[in-house]
Amino acid sequence: MVNSSSTFPIGGPQQHAPPFSAVQLDDPFWAPRQRLVRLSTLPAMYQQCLSSGRIDALRLAWTPGSRPVPHHFWDSDIAKWLEASSYALANQPDPWVEARMDEVIGLLQAAQQADGYLNSYVTSVTPTGRWTDLRDGHELYCAGHLIEAGVAHFLATGRRALLDVVCRYADYIASVFGSELGQKRGYCGHPEIELALVRLFRATGERRYLELSRYFVDERGREPYYFDQEAVGRTTPRASDSYYRRHGLRGSELRRYNQSHAPVRQQTQVVGHAVRAMYLYSAMADLAGETGDVELLAACQRLWSHLVATSLYVTGGVGSSAHNEGFSGDYHLPNADAYAETCAAVGLVFWAQRMLQLTADAQYADMLEKTLYNAVAAAISSDGKQFFYANPLASDGRAQRQPWFKVACCPPNVARLVGSLGQYVYSVGERHLAVHLFVAGQAHLEVGGRHVGMCQTHDYPWDGHIRLDLELAGPAEFGLWLRVPGWSRGATLRVNGEEIRVDGHLERGYVKLERTWRGGDRIDFDLPMPVERVYANPFVAEDVGCVALQRGPLIFCLEEADNPVALHQVCLPRSAALDAQFDADCLGGVVRVRTEGLVADVRDWNGQLYRPAHPVRLQRQPLVAVPYAVWGNRSLGQMRVWIRDAANA
Amino acid sequence: MVNSSSTFPIGGPQQHAPPFSAVQLDDPFWAPRQRLVRLSTLPAMYQQCLSSGRIDALRLAWTPGSRPVPHHFWDSDIAKWLEASSYALANQPDPWVEARMDEVIGLLQAAQQADGYLNSYVTSVTPTGRWTDLRDGHELYCAGHLIEAGVAHFLATGRRALLDVVCRYADYIASVFGSELGQKRGYCGHPEIELALVRLFRATGERRYLELSRYFVDERGREPYYFDQEAVGRTTPRASDSYYRRHGLRGSELRRYNQSHAPVRQQTQVVGHAVRAMYLYSAMADLAGETGDVELLAACQRLWSHLVATSLYVTGGVGSSAHNEGFSGDYHLPNADAYAETCAAVGLVFWAQRMLQLTADAQYADMLEKTLYNAVAAAISSDGKQFFYANPLASDGRAQRQPWFKVACCPPNVARLVGSLGQYVYSVGERHLAVHLFVAGQAHLEVGGRHVGMCQTHDYPWDGHIRLDLELAGPAEFGLWLRVPGWSRGATLRVNGEEIRVDGHLERGYVKLERTWRGGDRIDFDLPMPVERVYANPFVAEDVGCVALQRGPLIFCLEEADNPVALHQVCLPRSAALDAQFDADCLGGVVRVRTEGLVADVRDWNGQLYRPAHPVRLQRQPLVAVPYAVWGNRSLGQMRVWIRDAANA
Repeated sequence: MVNSSSTFPIGGPQQHAPPFSAVQLDDPFWAPRQRLVRLSTLPAMYQQCLSSGRIDALRLAWTPGSRPVPHHFWDSDIAKWLEASSYALANQPDPWVEARMDEVIGLLQAAQQADGYLNSYVTSVTPTGRWTDLRDGHELYCAGHLIEAGVAHFLATGRRALLDVVCRYADYIASVFGSELGQKRGYCGHPEIELALVRLFRATGERRYLELSRYFVDERGREPYYFDQEAVGRTTPRASDSYYRRHGLRGSELRRYNQSHAPVRQQTQVVGHAVRAMYLYSAMADLAGETGDVELLAACQRLWSHLVATSLYVTGGVGSSAHNEGFSGDYHLPNADAYAETCAAVGLVFWAQRMLQLTADAQYADMLEKTLYNAVAAAISSDGKQFFYANPLASDGRAQRQPWFKVACCPPNVARLVGSLGQYVYSVGERHLAVHLFVAGQAHLEVGGRHVGMCQTHDYPWDGHIRLDLELAGPAEFGLWLRVPGWSRGATLRVNGEEIRVDGHLERGYVKLERTWRGGDRIDFDLPMPVERVYANPFVAEDVGCVALQRGPLIFCLEEADNPVALHQVCLPRSAALDAQFDADCLGGVVRVRTEGLVADVRDWNGQLYRPAHPVRLQRQPLVAVPYAVWGNRSLGQMRVWIRDAANA
Repeated sequence: MVNSSSTFPIGGPQQHAPPFSAVQLDDPFWAPRQRLVRLSTLPAMYQQCLSSGRIDALRLAWTPGSRPVPHHFWDSDIAKWLEASSYALANQPDPWVEARMDEVIGLLQAAQQADGYLNSYVTSVTPTGRWTDLRDGHELYCAGHLIEAGVAHFLATGRRALLDVVCRYADYIASVFGSELGQKRGYCGHPEIELALVRLFRATGERRYLELSRYFVDERGREPYYFDQEAVGRTTPRASDSYYRRHGLRGSELRRYNQSHAPVRQQTQVVGHAVRAMYLYSAMADLAGETGDVELLAACQRLWSHLVATSLYVTGGVGSSAHNEGFSGDYHLPNADAYAETCAAVGLVFWAQRMLQLTADAQYADMLEKTLYNAVAAAISSDGKQFFYANPLASDGRAQRQPWFKVACCPPNVARLVGSLGQYVYSVGERHLAVHLFVAGQAHLEVGGRHVGMCQTHDYPWDGHIRLDLELAGPAEFGLWLRVPGWSRGATLRVNGEEIRVDGHLERGYVKLERTWRGGDRIDFDLPMPVERVYANPFVAEDVGCVALQRGPLIFCLEEADNPVALHQVCLPRSAALDAQFDADCLGGVVRVRTEGLVADVRDWNGQLYRPAHPVRLQRQPLVAVPYAVWGNRSLGQMRVWIRDAANA
């Protein structure tokens, strides 16, 4: 029985994600990206960590005056590289990678202090500063990433080397923080450890990690205000004081910046630093699921509703402003100046994934798809070695991916998400198997104690014909739920050749097929994929009078490489035909959209800058749009997602 | 004989501006503003100078550790207040103001060093730093403003107290700088002294001041590069090092920033800090006129052509970017983020005025008018006590005038321009009198040695009927030139009731009436003033698909106070009638434009942020536009100059 109300179902989440390793990708879109991350991104990232001093920093050999001075959240980059490498290793054994990981794990073991503490920066650079700057110091944030790495390494290899390290660290943290007498009543300025601790609980079964997560989440934003208290008597600046001063972040805005402006259960609007927000809301959803906490779920749902109604880019990017690396007000969604940090998109995937397990509502799977195929995919270059930190939706030609960053959170975040993509494709409930994403490959799942093999075969997202083949040892009765994407219309379905009415079985975005399934059962699911025009709510000032193009889950954009004109001058008549064709030679094989737009005829301006009462003459201009996911992989040039809409042409 | 070629006429400028005191304003637009500056702005400015410590700083009593620490160009604020007050005093005697001025002049006299040097900051704060930081220190810039004040005070009062001070200072500067052995081959990072020295030459007849100006102008941008040379061996940062670092200004961009990237005669494009550019080009034009230097004139004309073809706001503002407080690339004219500094608009008036004297070409008078009635007028509030530093052409409701600034260059710059407006209305040549601006009031001019009285009577810019009455002791033969504004079409003209064909007498933008004039001659000049739509060149990305409204010299804007809708949603059909009416009760009496636009109907969006293929429904919306000159004088709210153009509606 599926609970279709919007409040939390009694008894916990509706379904669970399978382990990432249950799904092997053989997908035209994601398999090459997963391979790219393994073969190109992760080795490049290791080199960057090595050459920048991040790995050496783990030796705790830094002395005052020597260079480079470690950065206070370098450990998190190492941890995310370890986590991403764990997924890669599970997908494809690689002795070289395993040896590098073992080396680094060895350094972490050696760097762990007798009491379990593990932070290379604090231990070697500010040894008296332990837990004195929770607002800016990122200690618990780094701990969270180490914990995630430990869990991932354990799940990927079955080995406990790093898991034991992070359990000891988590146990030590649990002794320091909490509401008992003598404990610090603090929490991290950058949420992360909260969701990591839930993962650690799930991997180990140790409930104390869940309790510690709940403590951190519920303590956040309470009075007396911890970040003020910890500053009393402080004589040195906190790690981000000068950054905040430079950005004019202070007072209540600074509290919103790290989501400590109110206890989380009272928060109603997405505010502040977007990555922090996404990680916090993910942890809230985790806790809601593990503890059946309907109040936390309700808070998540309120925050989600606010996000999707006011603050989401059409690409699935979030956090529009560089000012606070985050949310900047309802409907404020600048395009060329979009911040839309890669890590925030990754965080949105985390959050959506968790909401999806709790509610089994396809709106969350729609968001997974939108964000993965657009905001996340665009963040990494076609050679796997360059990355966007900010993800603009328009460029005058200057926006360009970079090989690395001083704060290098984004590259390994993409790597760990792509490496673990398998866990986002399906969910299993007690009596159902849900297909959320159309990602071709083999899955080995368990529904109601029975093994279910599932094979997806298709050219999605280039083509909407999805074939699913079931493998079962014997007949089994369960619900097979297929997501009907929010963007689709006119989906058709056949089971073993017999047509089934999609409308008749649709519930919360899924076609729900309840029957006795047998090995060899075949499902053909057809999603028509016309190119569609998308409009933004008129309150979005930047998009007024503009139109975007979407086909299937993909948002398209114009690039100068295909359209050698001033893109701001281009407008698209509503009558213009939109023709999609797969082009194997373009950008590794993508669907391109051809159409005909209009551009201003500048010849009759004679160099004038302004002129009166003289309508601008337009001329026809052939246009080619490519998926936003692959933009910026040719020569530097202009790009635009939102094209001017020639309303009456 | 008028030389109508575009190269420099042999023998110097075509005409000269009369002294500002030759014209008494009785104008519906400017007379109230001149009164406001005298009665409200100047006293407020004096108080700000007093309370901020600017006046006390002249006592040279600052000691290390005491507060406030003087700023290195405070002297220029004092100087501009003195200059503006001189004009006010000449327009209307005021013993209180005169007493304050005498006090301050006394302080300046006392602050002048034995060798003539006069800079309160250097003398008291960095006494060993004299002339060691020409790039950023603003010493010569401050000297320039003191010189302008000395000249203005002398012209306004006939008294030499301040003039003598600045002559001694200029003589000392002439001994320090130049190409003689032992002299510094430097020039100021912020041009200003160059044009001031020409004014000093004109007031005193001392040619050495003209020579010093020519030295500064011609030395600029030469190799070896002075600003590098002066930094050799320097151990302390220069005054703006941290500012430049913060703004990423370095290398060749920093050279362009202060227009020292090339010798001025080789410069072809307006670049860098806009105020510096305008002041430099003004001095170049001054020198071209005084020395008959055709090469300098040609450089000015090239720079002018580049400005008006690529980098001018429709309001007459210039310098679009806050990044460098200046020019940011051809056609880059952002609206909400416009910098368009008030001082740059004032500087453009200076430059246009000088070009106008040299060439007698009405395009420069058109620019005078555009900039004065829009960019300059908008900079000051209706109570005369608040000012825009940056002048955006669109606001989301946050842009707001301020009473004062840490760097307070703009308020006194507006004050001195408004106070001396009389010198912009007419020019006199050997055998002609040119009417550039339609500013009502009395003028007492001299043409060919004969006194000519001229009275303008009208309600310009609200109404286009101009009446001119001549006063002459006896008949006199000369050309009376009336500017036919670039924005006008269908002007008609009667002399003593007799219609004269405008087209038949039009030359370089002026109707030229050559005849024997007599006292009592009356001219009626009619400029039809429909409201017109103005379009921007399609290369201006920010204005594509938009339209602005202009009536006479005034650019209009929509304000939230009149139009309680989201202004970015408003679009204006090309068929919409534009109805102008004077409203005595609005904003001190202005013409308002009424029309009917279209706005998106947000009701049928049901809170969705994006939706497919569904045209946005529009509904009618009555609109009221007001002159940009008076915007921001009611409650805080949105504003837009460029309205979306509903092309086919």
